[in-house]
Amino acid sequence: MRLEIVTLSSIPEVRRGDDLASLIRQAAAREGGEGKNIDHSVVLAVAQKIVSKSEGAVVDLREIQPSAFAQSWAAEWSRDARLIQLILSQSRRIVKMDRGVLIAETLTGLVCANAGVDQSNVEGDDFATVLPNDPDASARRLRTSLGCGAVIITDTFGRPWREGLVDVAIGVAGLDPLDDYRGRTDRHGRKLAGTIIAVADQLAAAAGLLMPKAAGCPAVLIRGLRWQPAEGSARSLQRKPEQDLFR
Amino acid sequence: MRLEIVTLSSIPEVRRGDDLASLIRQAAAREGGEGKNIDHSVVLAVAQKIVSKSEGAVVDLREIQPSAFAQSWAAEWSRDARLIQLILSQSRRIVKMDRGVLIAETLTGLVCANAGVDQSNVEGDDFATVLPNDPDASARRLRTSLGCGAVIITDTFGRPWREGLVDVAIGVAGLDPLDDYRGRTDRHGRKLAGTIIAVADQLAAAAGLLMPKAAGCPAVLIRGLRWQPAEGSARSLQRKPEQDLFR
Repeated sequence: MRLEIVTLSSIPEVRRGDDLASLIRQAAAREGGEGKNIDHSVVLAVAQKIVSKSEGAVVDLREIQPSAFAQSWAAEWSRDARLIQLILSQSRRIVKMDRGVLIAETLTGLVCANAGVDQSNVEGDDFATVLPNDPDASARRLRTSLGCGAVIITDTFGRPWREGLVDVAIGVAGLDPLDDYRGRTDRHGRKLAGTIIAVADQLAAAAGLLMPKAAGCPAVLIRGLRWQPAEGSARSLQRKPEQDLFR
Repeated sequence: MRLEIVTLSSIPEVRRGDDLASLIRQAAAREGGEGKNIDHSVVLAVAQKIVSKSEGAVVDLREIQPSAFAQSWAAEWSRDARLIQLILSQSRRIVKMDRGVLIAETLTGLVCANAGVDQSNVEGDDFATVLPNDPDASARRLRTSLGCGAVIITDTFGRPWREGLVDVAIGVAGLDPLDDYRGRTDRHGRKLAGTIIAVADQLAAAAGLLMPKAAGCPAVLIRGLRWQPAEGSARSLQRKPEQDLFR
């Protein structure tokens, strides 16, 4: 088995209303060369940031009125009260809120720092991106427009217990994000009991290797993966509350 | 940027005392073809299972005397009391122990299900592998013997909040597992404040895409990564207790 992963490096700064599929198609055509054609054998990974920007999921912090709660917590930990207010508005549950770190469950059920609110690669201190409303739908639109095999929308998340961030899939179209080995057997004929692999998160992490934060390579093509086409949804990656030992 | 990831598919069943570097070198030579030469530009990812087997980190469960505690908990949740005892012996802290699931901090500080004790791809119900004693040292030995740029030893871990398992790096040699963007700037000149990427875990996840559990492809070559050579240690990926919001 053999995977080939390439970046599209010539995507311009994305703005509200831009047709992201066109920008990606044009970048692939312009760059040409090995591995850069987009077809049904390709998994396209796209960074959340440019999806949010194209969908206008950018908030002008000057329009936010922080609550007294947001103001006092922000003051205690030297954070921007407008950002804290925005984070709370994007959250349906606070998982941890301590030492200036805010980990929340977002409106769509993702658990991550700052509920996905982010100021990196955004112009000016007064703006922040929020997560796309429906990242699966964003992925589906890109897949349809581009005719690629699957699309994943990636974001960069921290994890408990381990240092450093990794990219995960927050939107999926065209593949089942979980590869379920239960019932299959290993080389010794032993049933693989609990083995369900988060293939979409592994794809996101692989793509993340080619999306250095400082560079602006927000789209990556992965070729060589074998998978059963499926509608797919990143919601399958969210652990159900009753099965979550860490609630 | 462009990454190429290939499996070595012809590594035989590994047994105690086998010279793993030789088996990998022979498989690469036998398979030949594009991307299969091992040199200083390559990151080699090796599954923990074959490292443990070659190092004799395989336990005969018939030699284990389960404690009363292990026996009662195993009986309550229909698990093998000998395995529970082995898991406890590999742990320095129990993180969660509920509903038949045992999440522990291992003797070397990893947090994972069953303290890394595993029966998949092991011959017979009476045997289980444990994690290598010092996975960084295992990685360093392979790197020295094979002359590759970096080595990571991977294992397949669950995570809180998200469904499905992903591969992570439990041993590292030849690269810093964390890529620290702090102080660097994004495209808009904004400082990337909290951004430290767990590059070794992203490499492990990428390799995991080519290590399907049922197949037996325990070694993967990754070519095209640019990195600063460094001694490296997977211990850098372990969050320090005082910085861990989830203790």
